[in-house]
Amino acid sequence: MIDQQIKSVIRDIPDFPKPGIIFKDITPILKNPQVCDAITDAFIDQLKDIEIDVVAGVESRGFLFGLTLANRLGVPFIPVRKAGKLPYSVKQKAYELEYGTATIELHTDAFEPGQKVLVHDDLLATGGTVTATSELIKEMGGEVAGFCFVVGLSFLEGREKITPISDRVIVLAEY
Amino acid sequence: MIDQQIKSVIRDIPDFPKPGIIFKDITPILKNPQVCDAITDAFIDQLKDIEIDVVAGVESRGFLFGLTLANRLGVPFIPVRKAGKLPYSVKQKAYELEYGTATIELHTDAFEPGQKVLVHDDLLATGGTVTATSELIKEMGGEVAGFCFVVGLSFLEGREKITPISDRVIVLAEY
Repeated sequence: MIDQQIKSVIRDIPDFPKPGIIFKDITPILKNPQVCDAITDAFIDQLKDIEIDVVAGVESRGFLFGLTLANRLGVPFIPVRKAGKLPYSVKQKAYELEYGTATIELHTDAFEPGQKVLVHDDLLATGGTVTATSELIKEMGGEVAGFCFVVGLSFLEGREKITPISDRVIVLAEY
Repeated sequence: MIDQQIKSVIRDIPDFPKPGIIFKDITPILKNPQVCDAITDAFIDQLKDIEIDVVAGVESRGFLFGLTLANRLGVPFIPVRKAGKLPYSVKQKAYELEYGTATIELHTDAFEPGQKVLVHDDLLATGGTVTATSELIKEMGGEVAGFCFVVGLSFLEGREKITPISDRVIVLAEY
């Protein structure tokens, strides 16, 4: 099964980025082309009943499988970036972090009004960034088609946070 | 031809990130799955005579086609990241920018000694980051198999800078 395949290669890094946090390091996944292909196939399979016009990937680890997925689905990929990185005209959204705030941006021509945007990141933690992304998509006239993640940390309750936005939440390997 | 296909969708953004610079915006490429597939196919075709054990992609836009390429080649993908982002033990390399310095990192287990690493980024400008990446790869016992970029800015002479490291330099669309 895909979750066991992912969990067998993922690496726990204690105390990163700060003491007390066990970080899920996905770089061993990227080193394993068979697992990468299995992840893409699993996403495609689990997304087959969802109507998707565009895939949005969150900087920077959401760029990895985000583009692969968009290309496999035959739809546009749009990058969700930190403030100041996108060169064309942008819309932005600030959101709260544990300490301070962050701001994400999308190009104003990222999608057409009414289009259905799948939001992708590598890991679902508290869901803060993808919630901000969803709000921005809706402010820009789009719809959130659903969410997909390689890994989820269920004790941080991100799924509970984002399900009211869309109940199409795909997490391949949940801890 | 692939260069015309890329140039037909790429977008010039004047005065980004600062006055006087014309930025090549690759986001319209990402919105076009046919052009993305053509880019990947062109890379695979032009890389066919190069022995590649690992693909290294430079954060963050080098993550886009970097993973796709590694998966198509059936080899590991390793992320080259800015300092402080990689969770496991790292080796780092500082290098000069126009103003100040930057530092890139690789995981210490990114590849085995003697392995041939293809260095990928979306755009070849002055070649500073990929030169630093190459030096780090060599310090860690690897070999640089070559370089590949979607776009190159020939007036910045990045090709001249990196050719002494490896003469396998692939640039799909050169300006």
